[in-house]
Amino acid sequence: MDFELSEKIETVLGMIDGFMREEVLPLERYFLAEPFSELMPRIEEKRRAVKQMGLWAPNHPEEHGGLGLGLVDHGLVSEALGVSPLGHFIFGCHAPDAGNIEILHQHGSDEQKRRWLGPLVAGELRSCFSMTEPEMPGSNPVMMETTAVVDGDDYVIDGQKWYTTAADGAALAVVMAVTDPEAPPHRRASMILVPTDTPGFDLVRNLNVMGHAGEGVFSHAEILYHSCRVPRSNLLGAEGAGFVIAQERLGPGRIHHCMRWLGICKRALDLMCVRWLGICKRALDLMCARAAERTIAPGVKLADREIVQAWIGECAARIAAARALTLQTAWRIERHGWKEARQEISAIKFLVADVMLEVVDRALQVHGGLGMTDDTILAWFYRHERAARIYDGPDEVHKLSLARQLLKRYRR
Amino acid sequence: MDFELSEKIETVLGMIDGFMREEVLPLERYFLAEPFSELMPRIEEKRRAVKQMGLWAPNHPEEHGGLGLGLVDHGLVSEALGVSPLGHFIFGCHAPDAGNIEILHQHGSDEQKRRWLGPLVAGELRSCFSMTEPEMPGSNPVMMETTAVVDGDDYVIDGQKWYTTAADGAALAVVMAVTDPEAPPHRRASMILVPTDTPGFDLVRNLNVMGHAGEGVFSHAEILYHSCRVPRSNLLGAEGAGFVIAQERLGPGRIHHCMRWLGICKRALDLMCVRWLGICKRALDLMCARAAERTIAPGVKLADREIVQAWIGECAARIAAARALTLQTAWRIERHGWKEARQEISAIKFLVADVMLEVVDRALQVHGGLGMTDDTILAWFYRHERAARIYDGPDEVHKLSLARQLLKRYRR
Amino acid sequence: MDFELSEKIETVLGMIDGFMREEVLPLERYFLAEPFSELMPRIEEKRRAVKQMGLWAPNHPEEHGGLGLGLVDHGLVSEALGVSPLGHFIFGCHAPDAGNIEILHQHGSDEQKRRWLGPLVAGELRSCFSMTEPEMPGSNPVMMETTAVVDGDDYVIDGQKWYTTAADGAALAVVMAVTDPEAPPHRRASMILVPTDTPGFDLVRNLNVMGHAGEGVFSHAEILYHSCRVPRSNLLGAEGAGFVIAQERLGPGRIHHCMRWLGICKRALDLMCVRWLGICKRALDLMCARAAERTIAPGVKLADREIVQAWIGECAARIAAARALTLQTAWRIERHGWKEARQEISAIKFLVADVMLEVVDRALQVHGGLGMTDDTILAWFYRHERAARIYDGPDEVHKLSLARQLLKRYRR
Amino acid sequence: MDFELSEKIETVLGMIDGFMREEVLPLERYFLAEPFSELMPRIEEKRRAVKQMGLWAPNHPEEHGGLGLGLVDHGLVSEALGVSPLGHFIFGCHAPDAGNIEILHQHGSDEQKRRWLGPLVAGELRSCFSMTEPEMPGSNPVMMETTAVVDGDDYVIDGQKWYTTAADGAALAVVMAVTDPEAPPHRRASMILVPTDTPGFDLVRNLNVMGHAGEGVFSHAEILYHSCRVPRSNLLGAEGAGFVIAQERLGPGRIHHCMRWLGICKRALDLMCVRWLGICKRALDLMCARAAERTIAPGVKLADREIVQAWIGECAARIAAARALTLQTAWRIERHGWKEARQEISAIKFLVADVMLEVVDRALQVHGGLGMTDDTILAWFYRHERAARIYDGPDEVHKLSLARQLLKRYRR
Repeated sequence: MDFELSEKIETVLGMIDGFMREEVLPLERYFLAEPFSELMPRIEEKRRAVKQMGLWAPNHPEEHGGLGLGLVDHGLVSEALGVSPLGHFIFGCHAPDAGNIEILHQHGSDEQKRRWLGPLVAGELRSCFSMTEPEMPGSNPVMMETTAVVDGDDYVIDGQKWYTTAADGAALAVVMAVTDPEAPPHRRASMILVPTDTPGFDLVRNLNVMGHAGEGVFSHAEILYHSCRVPRSNLLGAEGAGFVIAQERLGPGRIHHCMRWLGICKRALDLMCVRWLGICKRALDLMCARAAERTIAPGVKLADREIVQAWIGECAARIAAARALTLQTAWRIERHGWKEARQEISAIKFLVADVMLEVVDRALQVHGGLGMTDDTILAWFYRHERAARIYDGPDEVHKLSLARQLLKRYRR
Repeated sequence: MDFELSEKIETVLGMIDGFMREEVLPLERYFLAEPFSELMPRIEEKRRAVKQMGLWAPNHPEEHGGLGLGLVDHGLVSEALGVSPLGHFIFGCHAPDAGNIEILHQHGSDEQKRRWLGPLVAGELRSCFSMTEPEMPGSNPVMMETTAVVDGDDYVIDGQKWYTTAADGAALAVVMAVTDPEAPPHRRASMILVPTDTPGFDLVRNLNVMGHAGEGVFSHAEILYHSCRVPRSNLLGAEGAGFVIAQERLGPGRIHHCMRWLGICKRALDLMCVRWLGICKRALDLMCARAAERTIAPGVKLADREIVQAWIGECAARIAAARALTLQTAWRIERHGWKEARQEISAIKFLVADVMLEVVDRALQVHGGLGMTDDTILAWFYRHERAARIYDGPDEVHKLSLARQLLKRYRR
Repeated sequence: MDFELSEKIETVLGMIDGFMREEVLPLERYFLAEPFSELMPRIEEKRRAVKQMGLWAPNHPEEHGGLGLGLVDHGLVSEALGVSPLGHFIFGCHAPDAGNIEILHQHGSDEQKRRWLGPLVAGELRSCFSMTEPEMPGSNPVMMETTAVVDGDDYVIDGQKWYTTAADGAALAVVMAVTDPEAPPHRRASMILVPTDTPGFDLVRNLNVMGHAGEGVFSHAEILYHSCRVPRSNLLGAEGAGFVIAQERLGPGRIHHCMRWLGICKRALDLMCVRWLGICKRALDLMCARAAERTIAPGVKLADREIVQAWIGECAARIAAARALTLQTAWRIERHGWKEARQEISAIKFLVADVMLEVVDRALQVHGGLGMTDDTILAWFYRHERAARIYDGPDEVHKLSLARQLLKRYRR
Repeated sequence: MDFELSEKIETVLGMIDGFMREEVLPLERYFLAEPFSELMPRIEEKRRAVKQMGLWAPNHPEEHGGLGLGLVDHGLVSEALGVSPLGHFIFGCHAPDAGNIEILHQHGSDEQKRRWLGPLVAGELRSCFSMTEPEMPGSNPVMMETTAVVDGDDYVIDGQKWYTTAADGAALAVVMAVTDPEAPPHRRASMILVPTDTPGFDLVRNLNVMGHAGEGVFSHAEILYHSCRVPRSNLLGAEGAGFVIAQERLGPGRIHHCMRWLGICKRALDLMCVRWLGICKRALDLMCARAAERTIAPGVKLADREIVQAWIGECAARIAAARALTLQTAWRIERHGWKEARQEISAIKFLVADVMLEVVDRALQVHGGLGMTDDTILAWFYRHERAARIYDGPDEVHKLSLARQLLKRYRR
């Protein structure tokens, strides 16, 4: 057993920490006060700097212009980026592009790759993943009403999606639609590439989430597909393979009920849990800094109050444990594959989300009235990261899923 | 012991419930989507309807045009209004005007009353209460830097305040300022009436709170007083009586450290805890309705899931207990006075806030992605009512205060 | 609304508090160190004193030699007695005799009453209630394997029971047994009186509970009924009415699934929740006293530590809320009947148990190593009252039951 | 980073798991029902078997007849043994002998080692560690009243100790006593070896803990030292070095306030946290097995209930996280030394205790009435392991200690 980091990743993390602190965190005050589009020029400048430093797209293979980090190392990087909402976007490894790029890389035709892969990895275009439907439960992805019907050489797509993250301004949508309603549930849907300028692709609105419609990569759209026609060659992978691809790397024939979370969880691990650890780190840092600085009575700092100390102690311990398990999970996937890590993946989904929201809540409380304002990033974390317990399967589904895996051994 | 409600209040509550459901809740979608000023004409219409129904200003004495309800009955009314952020304002018993009116009524000179009381009770003018300072801990109100220096027949006020709720659009500010820095801490400050058009009253900004600067009665301002000059006749009550008045009804000489929360808590009880119970009621209602309606698998509703049921059961029980204690507290104050109810007042401040935030959080979780959007009121409650654990003394201060009262008997 | 206590009950409570403090609490050290049988002579002496004071059997009607208190007043008395495990027994209102007496009083034949009622109320005999079976879930009482088969003028009872509280030393068992396996589930079982000296009544063992087998009224027996023969005249109430009686006062024909908890909950209210409030009161008292007395550093008491203060504040608030709801529930039953109070009954069952166990746990923690020893009553409460979340329906069942009542209105 | 176990430890763990399951767990029913002394012959038999398997004393160096495992590997072994209260004793690595052996090994004179080390490692004799005093806070070990006064060639020891674990039947006590009351607090006390047959060593009683006085290695004694005279050569290490030794491996001069927990925590890690993980493992196993087996309605198992599943999921996740952090901590100590691991050591002390008690509590709840009995080991864990939050510094002290370490960087 060995928890030591390689020298290479230590160096990378040092560079990233510095860049985040010096270049990214100072942008947050604009991020909180202005429309995102106004901030974009400054963001692009930072992205160029990241590319020049050779740190762009740490998760993508070197042949595509990325750093080619393994899962553990990318996890550590993702944690370092997660201290700010801007981190992943500035380093070119943001959702949902990161997942779409991986899917394209694995299942795209040569033509599809040629057209989309380069610009997406380079951050010149953006994409979105259009799966969730307002009337259907996110916890049961095989319930889906959007259809893609073959008509000559085309698919004609009809349906309503929402929570299509980052659709605003995206050039490409990866759409899940039912292509064979008679097939068994997990073989009904396919993934289809839809350029967003296709007639019938109608971005109805950016959802008002926690008081804001958002913009660009920080938005969640409602989209109507009405008679939206694309060539059949825009099919990604095989027809009916939508869920298989969503679960990626799993071989065909391996699909059954209790496994359907795997692919989704992979994305969770790549982009969520470690990012949440970054948020924890930041919130704990803000909490300690505020406590150490704030005078509450002559000569007495907030940091002198036992209750605040107890919170800091509890938060630090819970973060440390969540982090140790997350790294162990990443290691197990990298070494032994997704299947061996299934239970840990379920565990970190809800455990890390829970720790993160608690740490943010306590950090906000330590800031008092200031915590409610947008003078720190905490109120943003508080309201927007609440979604962590909902997306990619609500916590409750993951708890039950983990329990059922464990109970299998005991049932006769 | 008798928990029965009077027929009169049952009738009033029935009318209010109906009005809220039919007339107020439908306004929320505009409240969530538009600037508040655009909604104001429709709000004013509802206020007129409330006046016509004879339900205006339920908390104020009949001679001032109110309903003259006692504390218990007003508590029940306030709960009924609390189901929507708009309730109290539409019924003319909103913070901070309600508290300011009471203070004016009790401590104002005849001239002060003549000028302000009528229009404030009638809802024709609005006022604000300018006490909290950014660099000073809200948990320790005697730490204050704003000063009011006598200069001839005037006070000249200098200092910085923030979280001055509803200052935007208010005609009058009740300002706490140090008039005698040499006096004992609780005799240092005075309350002074400052018309907001006085030169030197500078509303710097509405604070960005949870992503929004807000407007009108739904805003919290930062205010600079620089050489803000008002006649000495604008003093409210006696010089040095600022904290005494803040603690109201307490007789002179009764002021010492452990009592300083009383007046503040009174306001808490009037306007906060029972309003929070209204929020609980609404959130539980939304949670049940959503669970009963939402299909999560063919033939299965969310309401069929045990985990959701357990949440509903727990929330209902906690609300019921918090409510029983709050009513008991209101009764004790009405019957036996503030002093006898001190421990219960401290208790409900943090207990009801805790229940409310938990119920809102779970209701949001039951709504899934929808809960994050502004298509229901839950996300608004989630982000804005988080302040309940902070204002008028953070939870922690009230816990310690309650404990110290209890421990007194045990210490030798 | 009126929370005032009557003068009569104030007087009674004053007498009881004094007696508990002076006469009962000093017995606890023997209770914790000796077999209960050795303590019995001293207990009997106290029981005689209680009778002389005219406070015996506060819950039973005056015509049977009790005080005839209503439900609210008996609740207050039960809380006062609950501060010690010995309270209810010394005052003649202990489980399971209290419930058996009520059942006998309502459903017993004249002969049955003549034989048993007097000695049971007077505390000269003890009884037990033999319902729970080891292989059957307590949460589903209609699952039952013990049978009573008619044979001539007799019932012949066969089966296994456990958790038959206080069977050790009891003269009478009220046994639930299936008399008609073909009837609908709630009409299958009957209650039968079985004198414990009947051949075939075999008390196998007192269960080892939390390390102790217990003795007398503080024991839980496993009982084998093998060919245990009693006359048919020992049937209590009608054949098949076992569950109806268990739910008492509910009229015939009103029995359906969701109501089955009512009768059981009544007993819960009578004897459990208010007793638990007594435990809360005691534990909080011990916690405060220890904190005020214990020196943890030169000049520093435990009570000076904020964390301990925060615990005391939280415990006091939670107890106050649980208590207010419990009294409101008792009032509603007394005034409006069981049916109207169903939701509150479900609520207090799990809510008060939860508060009680938390308060006991924190009081123990405040006592440190001493809390683990039997030098205080806390360790006894900690281990034995843990059962509160299990008996008479585990918490979870009550949560679901409450939720289902609430959800009914929302389901279409 | 590498979480793989070595082949050697995998083999050892396999052997231990098998032995625990086949040979040790079946003894628990006697352990729960009989005095420990009656069980001792069977225990001795198992200890001989462990020696024959070559697994005796896994923590002690090979030259003393142990396995010589490093900290990580011993942690894994200790977890495997922790599934039963009997594990560590049967494998010869039980508290407090394990700690005393280490202290003797490092600080004992040749003569002291010759006399005691062999028989202690071999399990032929037992020892105890006599430090805690009833009137002094365990969280502040430098507050101590027991004295050892030099009189000629002897020390004369006077004082009262309690919670001297396993004193009953021990041959040797390691006693902490003040030898220089004028020295700075951390230099006042010395460790002195006192054979328990020395006149003046008076084992007053085994404390009644959670209803039982216990016996032998499962007991906690109160001891009076009155004029207890031992030769000065029984001093362990230097005079005044009591706390230094308690903190072991720390060099002289390194002692200051915030470090005083280190040595104590080392013992915590060796014997506590990993043992608690074993308890977690066992409780989760029992919970799953019971849920899978218990029928609660026709055709429905407890394991089918969502609430039970959610508990299992939550417990499994929390255990996994606590375990990952504990192993990481063990690794850091082994690789980088105690000082580098300070924060993690504080964290696991309270975090693992908390997880353990929650898992045990839920496992007990899943067992219903059975969980309260001594038919499973759960009720024993529930009542005796509650001490985990108290001994070696209550949770709260560790939380504050961790926070203060973190806050140091932020304070100016």
